[in-house]
Amino acid sequence: MTILTLTTDFGLQDGFIGMMKGVILDICPQVHIVDISHHVRPQQVAEGAFVLARAAPYFPPETVHVAVIDPGVGTGRGAIAARIGETFFVAPDNGLLWPLVEKARQAGEPLAVVRLENPAYWRAEVSRTFHGRDVFSPVGAHLACGLALAELGPAVPPEDLVPLEGTQPRRLPGGWEAHIQYVDRFGNLFTDLPAEWLPKSLESVRIRLKETIIQGVLPSYGHRPPGSLVAVINSENWLEIARVNGNAAQTLGLQVGDTILVEFS
Amino acid sequence: MTILTLTTDFGLQDGFIGMMKGVILDICPQVHIVDISHHVRPQQVAEGAFVLARAAPYFPPETVHVAVIDPGVGTGRGAIAARIGETFFVAPDNGLLWPLVEKARQAGEPLAVVRLENPAYWRAEVSRTFHGRDVFSPVGAHLACGLALAELGPAVPPEDLVPLEGTQPRRLPGGWEAHIQYVDRFGNLFTDLPAEWLPKSLESVRIRLKETIIQGVLPSYGHRPPGSLVAVINSENWLEIARVNGNAAQTLGLQVGDTILVEFS
Amino acid sequence: MTILTLTTDFGLQDGFIGMMKGVILDICPQVHIVDISHHVRPQQVAEGAFVLARAAPYFPPETVHVAVIDPGVGTGRGAIAARIGETFFVAPDNGLLWPLVEKARQAGEPLAVVRLENPAYWRAEVSRTFHGRDVFSPVGAHLACGLALAELGPAVPPEDLVPLEGTQPRRLPGGWEAHIQYVDRFGNLFTDLPAEWLPKSLESVRIRLKETIIQGVLPSYGHRPPGSLVAVINSENWLEIARVNGNAAQTLGLQVGDTILVEFS
Repeated sequence: MTILTLTTDFGLQDGFIGMMKGVILDICPQVHIVDISHHVRPQQVAEGAFVLARAAPYFPPETVHVAVIDPGVGTGRGAIAARIGETFFVAPDNGLLWPLVEKARQAGEPLAVVRLENPAYWRAEVSRTFHGRDVFSPVGAHLACGLALAELGPAVPPEDLVPLEGTQPRRLPGGWEAHIQYVDRFGNLFTDLPAEWLPKSLESVRIRLKETIIQGVLPSYGHRPPGSLVAVINSENWLEIARVNGNAAQTLGLQVGDTILVEFS
Repeated sequence: MTILTLTTDFGLQDGFIGMMKGVILDICPQVHIVDISHHVRPQQVAEGAFVLARAAPYFPPETVHVAVIDPGVGTGRGAIAARIGETFFVAPDNGLLWPLVEKARQAGEPLAVVRLENPAYWRAEVSRTFHGRDVFSPVGAHLACGLALAELGPAVPPEDLVPLEGTQPRRLPGGWEAHIQYVDRFGNLFTDLPAEWLPKSLESVRIRLKETIIQGVLPSYGHRPPGSLVAVINSENWLEIARVNGNAAQTLGLQVGDTILVEFS
Repeated sequence: MTILTLTTDFGLQDGFIGMMKGVILDICPQVHIVDISHHVRPQQVAEGAFVLARAAPYFPPETVHVAVIDPGVGTGRGAIAARIGETFFVAPDNGLLWPLVEKARQAGEPLAVVRLENPAYWRAEVSRTFHGRDVFSPVGAHLACGLALAELGPAVPPEDLVPLEGTQPRRLPGGWEAHIQYVDRFGNLFTDLPAEWLPKSLESVRIRLKETIIQGVLPSYGHRPPGSLVAVINSENWLEIARVNGNAAQTLGLQVGDTILVEFS
């Protein structure tokens, strides 16, 4: 059974997601729909891109990922579908797929992108304000039921897609300037620094967050008493700041985009 | 695979929806359950009716919609199931299905309603406080697995159902007095005025919301800079007030039931 | 189709649950996944145990329940799987399954527990911070697809599991000292007092909550006007305090762990 995932900023209260699922199941009744998140903050494309790029690798081949954070709906912004390796993606061309496409390009993975220009695979009537339901859902459903990517529209070179503006760690003498990239439900602070860029001797790493200093990077949250601020290598192998059984974001007053210093000694 | 949808005010934190799904899948294992919303505000029947009536048309024929916003549970309030066209609905008789039933009556659609009086299709033990689990879920599951509507109880004339008290636009010289009918996650304000009641020259329409005036109705949100207040025809073809990439409800201090003036010139 | 349920404190915003479902469906594509709750308050093991123990009985035999509220992840805390009657459970050994195991022991139900020590049924790479994805999800998926419990690791006597510290009603002359055990979305207060411990003459029971007195226990919420504070026998046959169409927890300022007096006269 093919899987189709949804990542949106539509929330779950208004029935928008229900409508999308109705449209999808009408086209492809045997698909298995999985929600990745519908609680991306409204219009936060970078946040949605981060959530999708993290979750997608855990799904089996042939999965179709439909992502809709779409502040430009109804204007001239483009819409795309991509095949990366054996996985499919459908989204507006606003940076939402950029991290996945860039990673695939750099890794030399098989990659094909098309513009959604064939209305034969959209709803018969397309509204100006809800392409999630009228364009992206039906396109995703057709892909899940076996439609060839090329049927959806003309190929587009990946480098022509709208890029996502994001932070990158900056090399300093003796360390890195890194950034908070995401704050999760627990108030854990995900940085943009991959663990492989840290030295082997994790206990020697010193992290400065505003006035707070954390000495050493731990293997997991549970190695310090509740309430302690800790730096850990998270489940995706990135540096993360957490408060044991507490909320680091609230404690530290940090948010997405804030700078931290990672010092080696 | 038959679809069964759920629309409730039970929220997702307490496990109530999990229990309902357990009961449904025990009776009809092959059904595909889809959540429309569980975040209707507690006991707000009109809000639930609005969400359900908007989402239901996007599901394929044979779908069974179970809706439970049920402040009168455990008292003498009735319970009903309906077939409208080829779609089934199960709900308390408290107005929740009223907009759908009224629309079908006015359109002359095939329509049959029965009272849930046959306990053979309920759970063996029915609590006084959770008919969502003990009555509506099992009835919906039996319908999804092919039970005939008439088995559930005696037919009832649609005009005998408990009506929903809602707003209606009022014709004024040179326009309409309309109302805020729903506020979505983005703070978009859905009015009770269908687009077909507006003049063709949308740019000439003037909308007064308290002290604010919006001149012209746009085809979509994205045609004005972020922060602009706009009036648009929404994805269901109703007049909607929005703030581009912002929250119109917060900006304007408007809520469900508030009056707006729509002036033609 | 086998059912696998999820009960966690991961929330729905960050994509953690999506990752878990990707892992599960990769191993066992035909399983039917049902969410019980992902909104258990962070690290609140007792709350998760309560939600799971209430919902689990409504699922059919062979269901696999995966529960992850796991403040000790990455430390030495154990991980277990259990078969209780014909139902399977997978969780950290931190009290999360304790109420279900204790009930089964006292009822003399068939009961088997194993420690998760066989990495053949985990993800190839196990992170230190997300065993929900890397251990509990794959183990649950293998059980759902027919793996024998004994394959997962060595048997452990149920009495060796980590117990859950919870409240118990205390017998007083002429009544009970009971406690608030859970507060649901509606602000209804679930107590730890089973209805069977109340006298037959429910109208004679008097309940003291701080300065408030409720006289009599009603069959359901709907028997008093909106706004009234009522005591009812809830859908699980426990004593519950509610405010008709309102929020008892807010009105009374009560929370989990608070004491109430139940007096017989």
